[in-house]
Amino acid sequence: MSAKRRIVALSGGVGGAKLAQGLDMLDDVDLTIVVNTGDDFEHLGLMISPDIDSVVYALAGLSDVDRGWGRADESWHFMEEIRRLGGEDWFLLGDRDLAMHIARTNAIRLGEPLSSFTLRIARRLGIRARIVPMTDDAVRTIITSDEGRLAFQRYFVGLRCEPIVRSVDFEGAPSARPVAELETEFADPGPDAIIICPSNPYLSIDPILSIPGIADMLSASHAPVVAVSPIIGGQAVKGPTAKIMNELGLAVTNDTIAGHYGDLIDGIVIDHGDRCPVAASPLACLSVPTLMHTVEDKVSLARKTVDFALSLSQPERVG
Amino acid sequence: MSAKRRIVALSGGVGGAKLAQGLDMLDDVDLTIVVNTGDDFEHLGLMISPDIDSVVYALAGLSDVDRGWGRADESWHFMEEIRRLGGEDWFLLGDRDLAMHIARTNAIRLGEPLSSFTLRIARRLGIRARIVPMTDDAVRTIITSDEGRLAFQRYFVGLRCEPIVRSVDFEGAPSARPVAELETEFADPGPDAIIICPSNPYLSIDPILSIPGIADMLSASHAPVVAVSPIIGGQAVKGPTAKIMNELGLAVTNDTIAGHYGDLIDGIVIDHGDRCPVAASPLACLSVPTLMHTVEDKVSLARKTVDFALSLSQPERVG
Repeated sequence: MSAKRRIVALSGGVGGAKLAQGLDMLDDVDLTIVVNTGDDFEHLGLMISPDIDSVVYALAGLSDVDRGWGRADESWHFMEEIRRLGGEDWFLLGDRDLAMHIARTNAIRLGEPLSSFTLRIARRLGIRARIVPMTDDAVRTIITSDEGRLAFQRYFVGLRCEPIVRSVDFEGAPSARPVAELETEFADPGPDAIIICPSNPYLSIDPILSIPGIADMLSASHAPVVAVSPIIGGQAVKGPTAKIMNELGLAVTNDTIAGHYGDLIDGIVIDHGDRCPVAASPLACLSVPTLMHTVEDKVSLARKTVDFALSLSQPERVG
Repeated sequence: MSAKRRIVALSGGVGGAKLAQGLDMLDDVDLTIVVNTGDDFEHLGLMISPDIDSVVYALAGLSDVDRGWGRADESWHFMEEIRRLGGEDWFLLGDRDLAMHIARTNAIRLGEPLSSFTLRIARRLGIRARIVPMTDDAVRTIITSDEGRLAFQRYFVGLRCEPIVRSVDFEGAPSARPVAELETEFADPGPDAIIICPSNPYLSIDPILSIPGIADMLSASHAPVVAVSPIIGGQAVKGPTAKIMNELGLAVTNDTIAGHYGDLIDGIVIDHGDRCPVAASPLACLSVPTLMHTVEDKVSLARKTVDFALSLSQPERVG
């Protein structure tokens, strides 16, 4: 029996979580998922980590697949009452979802790092993968827009991504340290492959790469780095990716995605409706169905992405 | 048109809240309710004020009358999930009820005193009465029992009042100050009557009277002080009152209740099945139905108690 392949995946929320779920279901993969925390914020005194929760709920089989976010079987009685009391109601917190936020806030206030809480809860929910926040330090994604500087959730949820994005910053990133588990993960011999999930590169993956040391770990690793493009047929599958690319003056193409990650990646996975090669670069390219509706879709894309990434390993590292 | 009668009521949770609700429904009464906060505690990082919430929910018409505590139309999805996450589940928090605890915790963490939050929320919910905690300082009821010293909720909910009570202390009381609204209320000319609701004297009213200054305010006031006895036919209507009286070696009678309040009260209201006078004391006594099932019961007892109390006013204070 061969050893499992050690895979490190970088992920944002819902879109990335779909591939992360597929990766977690591969029996020959030992998975660590590094999750964006730039969207984290404090709301009504609760510490909310939207992307971590999306990944945790997806991998625990607790996501609401139809709604596309949050918990399955959710109810909204808390929201009715917080409105009655005159509390802020622009960010929806389901009754079941609240348990996660209350447990996390309490744990952190009692001194437990976010990473420890997240690992503990994932284990408790029977998740195989290690799910780690990119950092235990506070990093906050700030959108500079035509309506001024906006905290991420205010832009994303409160203003429904309507303001025009001029630039994106990651407040606190320069002094943040990568989560300790990541350094362990990259210590020799390091992972067999690194996969960048089809999350929004500008809002969900860049915050991870903005933490000093993380991009260097990826570059220094012998493992091939493969990005799965969130663009299909010149459009984003979900969310504001295409809108933001337009506002930043970028063509909504796989070329742009490849160019954005640049030397960091060794390969790109694009949708089967799109054409390889991407740009004039020597980048390895795989064209397969990347739209994920069913669990089978997620597992299939995960399988193909892992096999593609491993095929890019330098010969001396294989076998 | 005559001015309203200014009434100050002292109350614990559910039992006292019933009479408080009746008092609040009397059109000729301007009501301030001073509520026990000795039962308050922090749970899962949330600041819970059980007696305040019982009074607020009762007066806002939001109580679950059948269950006898908590919110009407309650759901328990949060509890299911906190169990799934391995969180503490011995204290039940309903999905609707959570809104109050989260709003309160957030307000207090942001620097708002409990009294200001409580007044604000009561106004928001359309409640006429001023509902004030006995103090904004931390006072905690501690039960010394055959199983050692127990925080109140651990004894009351966690251990279902099973340990045998040896004594009751109010930690923090000696250095606590009465809530500012109370000093305003008692400033000249002061209230027209003071009513001690039929709450547990040892667990719910004593903490209020343990705050330095509050008993003195009651004694110094020209207003008659009337207690409504929680004992009916030698039994407590609800909760551990009779059990605790037994454990403290006290006879479960109205005499004991009258003796407990001693010189503080000018009159006592007992159930129509019990007999006046109480003890050999010169205490004014009114015997009327004190069991409150319906709203009509609450209003009726409130009416009779107020009229009885006002009848005890010193002649020079009347008219």
